[in-house]
Amino acid sequence: MRAVIVHPPKPGVEFSDLKEPIRHGKGSVKVRLLENGICGSDREIVRGRLATSRPPPGKDWLVLGHEAIGIVEESSDPRFKPGELVMPVNRRSYEGHCLNCLVGRPDFCEAEEYVEAGMVGMDGFMVEYYYDDPKYLVKVPSEIKDIAILAQPLSDLEKSIEEILAIQRRFIWTCDDGTYNCRRAIVFGSGATGTLFALLLKTYGFEVYIANRRDPLEGEAKIADEAGLVYYNYTKESLDKLKKLGFDLVIDTTGASASLIRHEIEILKPNGVLGLFGFPSEGEAVIPYDVFQRFIYKANVVVGIINGQKPHFQLALSHLAQWKSVWPGVTKRLITKVISINDEKEVIKALNAKEPGEIKVKIKWD
Amino acid sequence: MRAVIVHPPKPGVEFSDLKEPIRHGKGSVKVRLLENGICGSDREIVRGRLATSRPPPGKDWLVLGHEAIGIVEESSDPRFKPGELVMPVNRRSYEGHCLNCLVGRPDFCEAEEYVEAGMVGMDGFMVEYYYDDPKYLVKVPSEIKDIAILAQPLSDLEKSIEEILAIQRRFIWTCDDGTYNCRRAIVFGSGATGTLFALLLKTYGFEVYIANRRDPLEGEAKIADEAGLVYYNYTKESLDKLKKLGFDLVIDTTGASASLIRHEIEILKPNGVLGLFGFPSEGEAVIPYDVFQRFIYKANVVVGIINGQKPHFQLALSHLAQWKSVWPGVTKRLITKVISINDEKEVIKALNAKEPGEIKVKIKWD
Amino acid sequence: MRAVIVHPPKPGVEFSDLKEPIRHGKGSVKVRLLENGICGSDREIVRGRLATSRPPPGKDWLVLGHEAIGIVEESSDPRFKPGELVMPVNRRSYEGHCLNCLVGRPDFCEAEEYVEAGMVGMDGFMVEYYYDDPKYLVKVPSEIKDIAILAQPLSDLEKSIEEILAIQRRFIWTCDDGTYNCRRAIVFGSGATGTLFALLLKTYGFEVYIANRRDPLEGEAKIADEAGLVYYNYTKESLDKLKKLGFDLVIDTTGASASLIRHEIEILKPNGVLGLFGFPSEGEAVIPYDVFQRFIYKANVVVGIINGQKPHFQLALSHLAQWKSVWPGVTKRLITKVISINDEKEVIKALNAKEPGEIKVKIKWD
Amino acid sequence: MRAVIVHPPKPGVEFSDLKEPIRHGKGSVKVRLLENGICGSDREIVRGRLATSRPPPGKDWLVLGHEAIGIVEESSDPRFKPGELVMPVNRRSYEGHCLNCLVGRPDFCEAEEYVEAGMVGMDGFMVEYYYDDPKYLVKVPSEIKDIAILAQPLSDLEKSIEEILAIQRRFIWTCDDGTYNCRRAIVFGSGATGTLFALLLKTYGFEVYIANRRDPLEGEAKIADEAGLVYYNYTKESLDKLKKLGFDLVIDTTGASASLIRHEIEILKPNGVLGLFGFPSEGEAVIPYDVFQRFIYKANVVVGIINGQKPHFQLALSHLAQWKSVWPGVTKRLITKVISINDEKEVIKALNAKEPGEIKVKIKWD
Repeated sequence: MRAVIVHPPKPGVEFSDLKEPIRHGKGSVKVRLLENGICGSDREIVRGRLATSRPPPGKDWLVLGHEAIGIVEESSDPRFKPGELVMPVNRRSYEGHCLNCLVGRPDFCEAEEYVEAGMVGMDGFMVEYYYDDPKYLVKVPSEIKDIAILAQPLSDLEKSIEEILAIQRRFIWTCDDGTYNCRRAIVFGSGATGTLFALLLKTYGFEVYIANRRDPLEGEAKIADEAGLVYYNYTKESLDKLKKLGFDLVIDTTGASASLIRHEIEILKPNGVLGLFGFPSEGEAVIPYDVFQRFIYKANVVVGIINGQKPHFQLALSHLAQWKSVWPGVTKRLITKVISINDEKEVIKALNAKEPGEIKVKIKWD
Repeated sequence: MRAVIVHPPKPGVEFSDLKEPIRHGKGSVKVRLLENGICGSDREIVRGRLATSRPPPGKDWLVLGHEAIGIVEESSDPRFKPGELVMPVNRRSYEGHCLNCLVGRPDFCEAEEYVEAGMVGMDGFMVEYYYDDPKYLVKVPSEIKDIAILAQPLSDLEKSIEEILAIQRRFIWTCDDGTYNCRRAIVFGSGATGTLFALLLKTYGFEVYIANRRDPLEGEAKIADEAGLVYYNYTKESLDKLKKLGFDLVIDTTGASASLIRHEIEILKPNGVLGLFGFPSEGEAVIPYDVFQRFIYKANVVVGIINGQKPHFQLALSHLAQWKSVWPGVTKRLITKVISINDEKEVIKALNAKEPGEIKVKIKWD
Repeated sequence: MRAVIVHPPKPGVEFSDLKEPIRHGKGSVKVRLLENGICGSDREIVRGRLATSRPPPGKDWLVLGHEAIGIVEESSDPRFKPGELVMPVNRRSYEGHCLNCLVGRPDFCEAEEYVEAGMVGMDGFMVEYYYDDPKYLVKVPSEIKDIAILAQPLSDLEKSIEEILAIQRRFIWTCDDGTYNCRRAIVFGSGATGTLFALLLKTYGFEVYIANRRDPLEGEAKIADEAGLVYYNYTKESLDKLKKLGFDLVIDTTGASASLIRHEIEILKPNGVLGLFGFPSEGEAVIPYDVFQRFIYKANVVVGIINGQKPHFQLALSHLAQWKSVWPGVTKRLITKVISINDEKEVIKALNAKEPGEIKVKIKWD
Repeated sequence: MRAVIVHPPKPGVEFSDLKEPIRHGKGSVKVRLLENGICGSDREIVRGRLATSRPPPGKDWLVLGHEAIGIVEESSDPRFKPGELVMPVNRRSYEGHCLNCLVGRPDFCEAEEYVEAGMVGMDGFMVEYYYDDPKYLVKVPSEIKDIAILAQPLSDLEKSIEEILAIQRRFIWTCDDGTYNCRRAIVFGSGATGTLFALLLKTYGFEVYIANRRDPLEGEAKIADEAGLVYYNYTKESLDKLKKLGFDLVIDTTGASASLIRHEIEILKPNGVLGLFGFPSEGEAVIPYDVFQRFIYKANVVVGIINGQKPHFQLALSHLAQWKSVWPGVTKRLITKVISINDEKEVIKALNAKEPGEIKVKIKWD
């Protein structure tokens, strides 16, 4: 069967014709692929730059792809019926020593015993069909099939907000009306992750800023407008102005220089939290002692936030369905390109480089 | 201005022409009514049977109505602009001695210092226009205006599930995939409350039974079918069968005889919880010592669940928007009748008695 | 080696000379017994009245005893050294399917896969020496050896209060100074459990009543006096007076008639919780519908509370050490009798019946 | 009446004879001083180096002292009786706009509306007698009068651990036996704060290292030995060795150079947390991007931890009472010097400089 494969840690990507079907865990559900999404990590692997990426044991290649929607073709599990749409969870643990893994939360694995589909030690989902474990399959309502592929990247953000709100439950962080409406959040970075994060924080009731080093593109501006986000170009206007405003929640999705982190800390209000989501790829943060003094005085928190699991995929699908009703224009702008799997040249091109204005590119198998 | 008024504790309901505008709290937002919903409590007041109902201080009459959508006409609060749709929160606290009230949660008031619009010491919203406090106004997305009136009754259930999940966080109650998909819930009663509760529990990932003393009506059957609920007629099939199945979560919305409660306790699985939502109106529960022995052994909980606040209204609107996308047939069936406020006879009739098959009746002002 | 054995479900108790050493789980620590405590459940087993009691698989007898302190004689586990004092945890799970069991909390076992030392499917600790699993051994500071045996019964109460406080975290239940000092609790029953529960609630900052059907004995009165507890004879003074006072927390430890439970519910204040700890042994609770109405209105909770685990044993030892400093008179009154294991007649007598004024009887092996 | 006063932000300290009694809040309890403790912040004020220190409005002087034990002389509050020992809470909020302040937790004040006795805008407790608000008075058991003064500094640490454990409740952080016994913690700094922190973490079940730039003094070594702490001289042995060991919890109490913070981050294990308690007084942390990558991957947290409130004072007194029983040698070593208030020269000297080996110095008024 047809598949898109890579050879980490070596760069490159190619189409291949697999002889043996891919089978994960119990493998009791046969899934035929309908769609894949492409994300920045796929491209890092293709470029040979994702240090943690590796094939499954005993192989020198890996099926790429961790964003996928498929249709059930066969199933020996009563919970899944042929014809149902499903989405696979990408980080998994089949070992079972870490307590968090045992309770279905390998996002908090302490034993490094997990694998990640299409990335770390487990084949991914850019493949015609494969056999999956029902434990890691999420049902997708056909009514939102057009945007459902976004549930994978969104799941990471659902988990992140769940985690941050859990951390903030150590004091009263809701407002005098019980909501988060008095809380101000800012998301650094306006890529797919930044945009989805901002929409999600807005859904949770926050006042939301989205910050970047440039003015918004047309699509970004329209999304911000419909969803009520404030776009902030911090090379034009100063970071100092942000410090004066003050933020209860700061999210970094830039994956750029670590030097930004100092400023993200300094704009925190008392009891505020900074969530680091994007992996900084260069530079260093130089943080003077008096910044730490204020950090302590203000009871601030910095937390590393990663990886959503099955409950977060389900929540992501709920939110996408909600957005489809209340922000119809926004949801139409989130998928910026659709490529057929048969257009192999275009697929390889998309896996190599991001186009300007891209939010989410998806590949269709049918 | 035109209003529907009652004289609790006396029975009766009538249209009236108010001389003075109604003003709540800061009163900085003028709201023109678009819709009201009618619920069972309204009818209890009309029948003079809601013991806790009373007019505001110094009056012998009360504007009825706690389910409402309006449009902002004037506003001196920057958060609300003319033309926006709003929904008022019905239970409020203007005193501020109880700690839960001070943090915006009069649903957990310990000082009985709250008032309830259209019911207890505060005028309701069946009135042409009135002035409201922005703290208690919830924005309604115009895209879901058709079903948004359901957010008021749904808010109580959002709060209930939030409370139950908080109670259950004292141990691991999520499944081995981190979701609630392995948990079985049953809702007793298939009225508006029972139906909405079942839909909400399904949304949270539970396997959901809905139980009543009769077979489902056609509309109920279709809702159950589209949303994947199991309808159970417990006069036809035995309560004993439910005991064998076992439930992790049991919700009572019947408001019928207290005698049912013993059975609801007995069908609980270990770590299971019974939420009492409907006020039983007659009878008594006779619970033998050995039922309590098993209750203790199984670490069971019974909890009284009431009243949603502003965060729960917001969550209810989110869920309604989601349902509109994924269960379009269900959402169309939830509003079973629309009456014009100008059809005064029909309004009075609807306030006096429930029609067969009714889920939600709404009154339109425009 | 010498052991005290029973033959559940048959009544009776006897001394026996075991040929084979008892070994639990990994069995890497050899423990020589120093002390056992006797509790009501031991006597229920001796009387053949504890329905759930059974020998381990393949045997028709069971070593009795779930309260014990021993000294390490040999150990292949680096965490335990010869000469250290240890206390075994009594409820255990060696199966590992239930998620709560997997994370060390078989007190919340949903799969009924646990065993209980000296009671249910596992030999107990009234034995000269045995081999234990380090996972289930708790270190005992020698400085509080005199009262440490109380840590086993106290562990159940530590768990109970932890659970109740977790349930109450769903709203603000602390006072305006952040403490529990404004909260009023009442414990029904003044046996060992009731007394320890009252002392523990006082330690947590509650105002504490202890209620019984009689006046306090001299020892009870002195404990109440030193620790600042209010003793309440509810046959002399009315239950109605308690209703007027109102309680935020009600604990039942009586194990008497279920009929008391209705009254315990009625004395709850808004947001109050009733913890059922004692297994009622007769009667029934007859609860009219209007009692449930108020229960719901007041957002009350009833919860079944059982079994402490290793963290609760550790906490119990901490609290006993604290009490030894601040309530030296109280701690001296808690051990009401010490019997030598060599006085076999006296041991058998103590295992058959409770003496008046008894709080805790312990058996010494050295 | 006699008092020790300062003139912040100017340096210096002196004895004074106040004409008017000091009165806080309701002032319904007259407290005669028995003891004061001296801490590093007192000396910072005396040296004119605590930037945030200021007198109450309308004055240019401030009574020093935030660690105190007094005896009730008069009281119009039924909760406090003459002859009882009390300890005042030092951070307070009399304004009441911030929600956390309203519920008795000005340690999480967001509005900077609090005052701090003897430091920020409120007279302290180095005064013969004064009138206090019962809300901020904590009862002290006379049985632990000798060490109770430590409850003030310890209260900050109780709050810190409570906060950290709350943050860590977002996943399973307890071990497979439900305890924290498998978790490794390290405290940087071995002054009064570091020592108390280490003892408290040990009490909570952690394996505890205490790290400093030198070998332990004799007293420190004996405390570490009795309480089972591991002392680590990180100038002798490398920080790298700590990185290999890995820590679940790192606490900084040094108040030294911010450069240490980078290393404290690097030694964190997955899911580990760094609590910053000591205000760094110089330098900067230079943190490269790859350190942040691992921080994110490991789901680490950095949190600023400050200030205990009334519940933490009560918990601190409980733990001191416990330690007095189980670590009698340790508790005797914690008070390293006692000075009479009549020895004014010695008092002034102690307020100016710390002696080698000092843990806690206290001043006696009787």
